[in-house]
Amino acid sequence: MTTITFQFGSAQTAFCVRETVPGLETITGGRAAGALIVCDENTRAAAGKIRAGYSAALCVLPPGETAKTWRSVEAILKAASDAGLDRDGFFIGCGGGAVTDLTAFAASVYRRGAALCLVSTTLLGMADASLGGKTGIGLFGVKNLAGTFYPASRVYAPVRELATLPEREWKSGMAEVIKTALLDESGALAGILAEHRAALGSPGAAADGKTAGVMGELVLRAAELKGRIVEKDPLETGSRRLLLNLGHTFGHALEAARGLGTLTHGEAVAWGIARAAELGRAAGITSENRKREITELLASWGYETGFRADPALFFAALAGDKKRKSGRNIFIVPTERSAETLSLDMTLPTERNLIEKIIMGA
Amino acid sequence: MTTITFQFGSAQTAFCVRETVPGLETITGGRAAGALIVCDENTRAAAGKIRAGYSAALCVLPPGETAKTWRSVEAILKAASDAGLDRDGFFIGCGGGAVTDLTAFAASVYRRGAALCLVSTTLLGMADASLGGKTGIGLFGVKNLAGTFYPASRVYAPVRELATLPEREWKSGMAEVIKTALLDESGALAGILAEHRAALGSPGAAADGKTAGVMGELVLRAAELKGRIVEKDPLETGSRRLLLNLGHTFGHALEAARGLGTLTHGEAVAWGIARAAELGRAAGITSENRKREITELLASWGYETGFRADPALFFAALAGDKKRKSGRNIFIVPTERSAETLSLDMTLPTERNLIEKIIMGA
Repeated sequence: MTTITFQFGSAQTAFCVRETVPGLETITGGRAAGALIVCDENTRAAAGKIRAGYSAALCVLPPGETAKTWRSVEAILKAASDAGLDRDGFFIGCGGGAVTDLTAFAASVYRRGAALCLVSTTLLGMADASLGGKTGIGLFGVKNLAGTFYPASRVYAPVRELATLPEREWKSGMAEVIKTALLDESGALAGILAEHRAALGSPGAAADGKTAGVMGELVLRAAELKGRIVEKDPLETGSRRLLLNLGHTFGHALEAARGLGTLTHGEAVAWGIARAAELGRAAGITSENRKREITELLASWGYETGFRADPALFFAALAGDKKRKSGRNIFIVPTERSAETLSLDMTLPTERNLIEKIIMGA
Repeated sequence: MTTITFQFGSAQTAFCVRETVPGLETITGGRAAGALIVCDENTRAAAGKIRAGYSAALCVLPPGETAKTWRSVEAILKAASDAGLDRDGFFIGCGGGAVTDLTAFAASVYRRGAALCLVSTTLLGMADASLGGKTGIGLFGVKNLAGTFYPASRVYAPVRELATLPEREWKSGMAEVIKTALLDESGALAGILAEHRAALGSPGAAADGKTAGVMGELVLRAAELKGRIVEKDPLETGSRRLLLNLGHTFGHALEAARGLGTLTHGEAVAWGIARAAELGRAAGITSENRKREITELLASWGYETGFRADPALFFAALAGDKKRKSGRNIFIVPTERSAETLSLDMTLPTERNLIEKIIMGA
């Protein structure tokens, strides 16, 4: 359907929205011989479409965020080594955010860097996780404690694959789309969401050609917005890329406090966006009107924003946040048409009490 | 004594030749609070000099090349996480090539990239391993199968530390210096080696101020030559940086064929340089005169170049070589004043027989 190209530092990524999963010959540009396809138990069928007619090596991981471990990376590296992949070898990750993060991490360290393409099969992956080069695994209970920046040379978003996505996964991805829409000063993404609210309400509609087109447009706009922000700050050294973490400082800490895998990433992020709007309001950055608009938007898409977190666990998770710098946590709070960073020191009682009040919904 | 600055892609490395080990305040530029020092059991004393007067976190690894495993990387990441290091945290690796490779790999993946300085305590490290950004660990019996390119922001070479280096380690490092001298078209490094042959014969002489100065000059010139080559090809995507592998395609395969840790890296490299000269001669690239000159140079520094390798194990190791591209092995062979690449296909009987003849010394 459409392709956009991004420049992330010295690396280029072509983001390709397609109706269906591309074949191995297309992905590798005719170099199918040295390829390894990585999928999980849920994406065997999609991986099979890539592999049809070829005998490329295949590595099947256990599904889910809990598989983001060194053991999984080692399984991928072993499959690549057993298949005799050299530096010219192609790593192809086919699946959701966990599979693409793991494949990208493995590719980034295999013989100090192998070629990488991703075929994203979830809304979360297409609209967010597969683009921008972040890779990672969990260690010692900390999400993405180890990882690299390693953009794929190509990311495919085959939108018709979304038709078989579980409703909960669809909703998890939609939270990232809504987050991105809140950062879109042009209002274009919010416009697509409002106009096609009914068609975008569930993944099954992707089976219909017209709706698949709308979904393609949605994914393309979300990816473009994210990609343009990442282009300005590929290694997240400045504050620009941090804006993409709207809802995530709260959300990641909630995920950790409730135990990884209990909530979907999107459920935690949607809750985090609501909390960020409250924090912005309390700090005098977010207007009452903007806060209400955000709360209503989240409610209209059916997100639960009343979760409670145990404060001790929540603050322990904040203390281990990757974005923490020189002891201060970075929160992203909504402004009238985008968002900005707010850095708080959790060792100061007033700042800690403010956050505690917000997470307790008081 | 002297500092040279290199630009490796988007990263800068300052290479600092000093008499003694710098303190933590100097290394971190006044940010000693968020530092982790990594050493091995042999470099505890040097690490102690860095840490004197501070309570910085310390991670002590087992010594040697066999410690280059994920388990060691995990130990470093755990120490950093336990010490509460955030993205601004400083990783300081103090030791030989194994410690600096491991510390750099861990820093490159910790929260997707932490600050890194290296204090090199061996001749091999100072003249070669610590500079240029290559990091790595062994996996499934393959050396450096996993790794990254992650140059340190500063590399210190405290030459007086060399005085306590075991003779065999000194000689291992000298092989890399000789390799670098063979690539030096100006002949300056070869000149230092020839002029100071007696003083440079053993590490103990570093205790003497004048000899330490000569060693500093040697290390500086070797690092400068390597650094300037790496600057032109930081990710080894072209053929330029490959020249630094003179002796290494043969040498790495010999190390693997005889079992990692049996020979020192330098012993294997010196043997590999002699083999590369023979291959270059057979291929009509290296003159008889240049080959004789190289053989005599290696002999004058006391290197054994008569090792035999089991051909089956040797070719199995070649098949897994990181530099192998599209099925062909890359050999570096000496030219009159430098070296060039020679790519051979080990599945072709004539090319395989040539290599077999050379490794069997027939």
